Amino acid sequence: MYNSSQPNTKQADVPPAQPNKQGGSESKKFEQKYLGPVPKALSVEGGAPQPVDQKNIDPDTYTEKDKVKATFVSLARNSDLYSLVDSIREVEDRFNKKFHYDWTFLNDVEFSSEFKETVSTIVSGKANFGLIPKEHWSYPEWIDQEKAALVREKMREQKIIYGHSESYRHMCRFESGFFWRQEILKDYDYYWRVEPDIKIYCDIDYDVFKWMKDNGKEYSFTISLPEYKETIPTLWQTTKEFIDKHKEYLAPNNMMNWLSDDDGNTYNGCHFWSNFEIASLNFWRSDAYRSYFEHLDKAGGFFYERWGDAPVHSIAAALFLPKEKIHFFEDVGYYHVPFTNCPVDPEIRKERRCNCDPQKDFSWRGYSCTTKYYNVNGFKRPKGWEKYTG
Amino acid sequence: MYNSSQPNTKQADVPPAQPNKQGGSESKKFEQKYLGPVPKALSVEGGAPQPVDQKNIDPDTYTEKDKVKATFVSLARNSDLYSLVDSIREVEDRFNKKFHYDWTFLNDVEFSSEFKETVSTIVSGKANFGLIPKEHWSYPEWIDQEKAALVREKMREQKIIYGHSESYRHMCRFESGFFWRQEILKDYDYYWRVEPDIKIYCDIDYDVFKWMKDNGKEYSFTISLPEYKETIPTLWQTTKEFIDKHKEYLAPNNMMNWLSDDDGNTYNGCHFWSNFEIASLNFWRSDAYRSYFEHLDKAGGFFYERWGDAPVHSIAAALFLPKEKIHFFEDVGYYHVPFTNCPVDPEIRKERRCNCDPQKDFSWRGYSCTTKYYNVNGFKRPKGWEKYTG
Repeated sequence: MYNSSQPNTKQADVPPAQPNKQGGSESKKFEQKYLGPVPKALSVEGGAPQPVDQKNIDPDTYTEKDKVKATFVSLARNSDLYSLVDSIREVEDRFNKKFHYDWTFLNDVEFSSEFKETVSTIVSGKANFGLIPKEHWSYPEWIDQEKAALVREKMREQKIIYGHSESYRHMCRFESGFFWRQEILKDYDYYWRVEPDIKIYCDIDYDVFKWMKDNGKEYSFTISLPEYKETIPTLWQTTKEFIDKHKEYLAPNNMMNWLSDDDGNTYNGCHFWSNFEIASLNFWRSDAYRSYFEHLDKAGGFFYERWGDAPVHSIAAALFLPKEKIHFFEDVGYYHVPFTNCPVDPEIRKERRCNCDPQKDFSWRGYSCTTKYYNVNGFKRPKGWEKYTG
Repeated sequence: MYNSSQPNTKQADVPPAQPNKQGGSESKKFEQKYLGPVPKALSVEGGAPQPVDQKNIDPDTYTEKDKVKATFVSLARNSDLYSLVDSIREVEDRFNKKFHYDWTFLNDVEFSSEFKETVSTIVSGKANFGLIPKEHWSYPEWIDQEKAALVREKMREQKIIYGHSESYRHMCRFESGFFWRQEILKDYDYYWRVEPDIKIYCDIDYDVFKWMKDNGKEYSFTISLPEYKETIPTLWQTTKEFIDKHKEYLAPNNMMNWLSDDDGNTYNGCHFWSNFEIASLNFWRSDAYRSYFEHLDKAGGFFYERWGDAPVHSIAAALFLPKEKIHFFEDVGYYHVPFTNCPVDPEIRKERRCNCDPQKDFSWRGYSCTTKYYNVNGFKRPKGWEKYTG
């Protein structure tokens, strides 16, 4: 509507060079330099790194028709509204205003009209609002609720984070076993999970959903780290029982050696931080995952312990998918309290117009599992990573 | 570059209506409904409010050529970089990506290359970097520095905010008397001051600088409040001395009764919060303001007290400008710690796609001077303001 959609390259009204000027820059026309994520490369001992092929998107041929069946998904309370719209703005400004994918909001109670009106104003795609069925947010009949209550009491004393909380457990169980089977999501294939108060620091100028599909990716992450062991005492034991009964679900070329440092005997706690996921809904809908979740649900650890959806998703992805189907989005620039993923290579930050502080990046520091992810995959680390350790 | 710049209005790939669906919205085409700020209206006793004329911008005729000589201005330290780029992103995403106005950064030391490269990547206009001359950031020769040091010591004991700080005073004096006379700004007429860690919650779809110019506005604000009296004990007395000598500078129809509740005898402390200003550089360059600043500077209160640029700018604007030349941007949705300006009328928030929480709005609450501003101007308050008081 304005004719000024192109950056101003005319110099007529621009002040001439000034004294005391420390250097400046001309108006920039943002050219699409990249058509997908930063490519990965395999480290080669004593040789040049070998780029891993990826199928990027040609902006000259990309049209509406190339969009895939995808939606953003946010589980939210009405009271989360203003924190969530901050996140929606982030995702819209950095990505979705170009593509207009749908947004789906889920709540265990009815959304208020204020919530629905406000988010509808801010999203650039269709907004769907779903009410979670009671059976997806309550105790299964086989759960001993007294036993569960005693666990919460104990964890409260032990100051285990969220250990006191019933609703947190319902949330973890929901995100593990039910979000992907909501009726309102049934015609979508991919999703991007968005939580309140996140930041996206880099521009994403290509259709990430299409890229995931074209490249056969079924799960992706930005941050990984070890779980609090006290929240998952028997998760691995329960998982091993499942694997013993269902070896057919273990993928060839899986990431067992990311989850375990002793060939599967114990779990080191490494998981993908699930508050950011761009992934395939159909993976969760697969026989492998459905039955894994059912096995876990029957064991009761969502209530008798504090199993998070993050380790549950991660164990499943790392065991039931070949590792090539998992993707690390190093170039999105993601923040969720208290961790940041910021590309440490200044070239990448410049290319993708990231405004994050690399000093805040967590990926290469001691507590992260991303270093192990790179090792397991044999990937070459980004330039300068060694300056952002410790 | 992508053909997908129009929102997806095709329904082919969109899921049909879902059970448990709480209602949703179709993809939206954002139509330009407004061509300027929310119009003000004069309250009419017992009658319909009388709209105040304003000259809005016709998007059908607006072109590059209509841009005015304007720049964003940020005084920043190198260490402010990542907080500042957050603010730059806000302003770019909500406004400047459409218009590509320049950005000017000022520092009392050289900007680092990391600073210059990072901001240059994020701004969509030209980036200028200016070094502040020493004489604009140091003690004038007439200042008794021992006396100034004793003041800082005393204010530190009294816990007056920033009362201990030399650099804060240099900053206040700089913003009061020198920023507008930097060589690097000499060919600009208007500026928008941007500080680290701000938020802009609403979309601004029209050229605010052109609007200010077309409507003869020379100063604007989003938040107003009273000053800490302990920081400005003799500011008003000094001002009165100046006015007595220069009655010619007092504008007809000025806002003395906003600054003073007793016809100018004392100052009530009301000021515009200067961390947000869209204003005319030439107003500060006027004889009235130049000589007012010089009078204040000679009196020494920047150092012997803790005069802020906010009350200094505000007193000058309120006295030397007719009130019609001052504008309250109620529809920008602005946050700077710890205050928020958020349009309380949900229609405005919807129209301008604001994602702020009206409960956080400060404008109509006890501590704000914006209520007094509306009284003095006879403006009708926004719909529902009375719910956001107390």
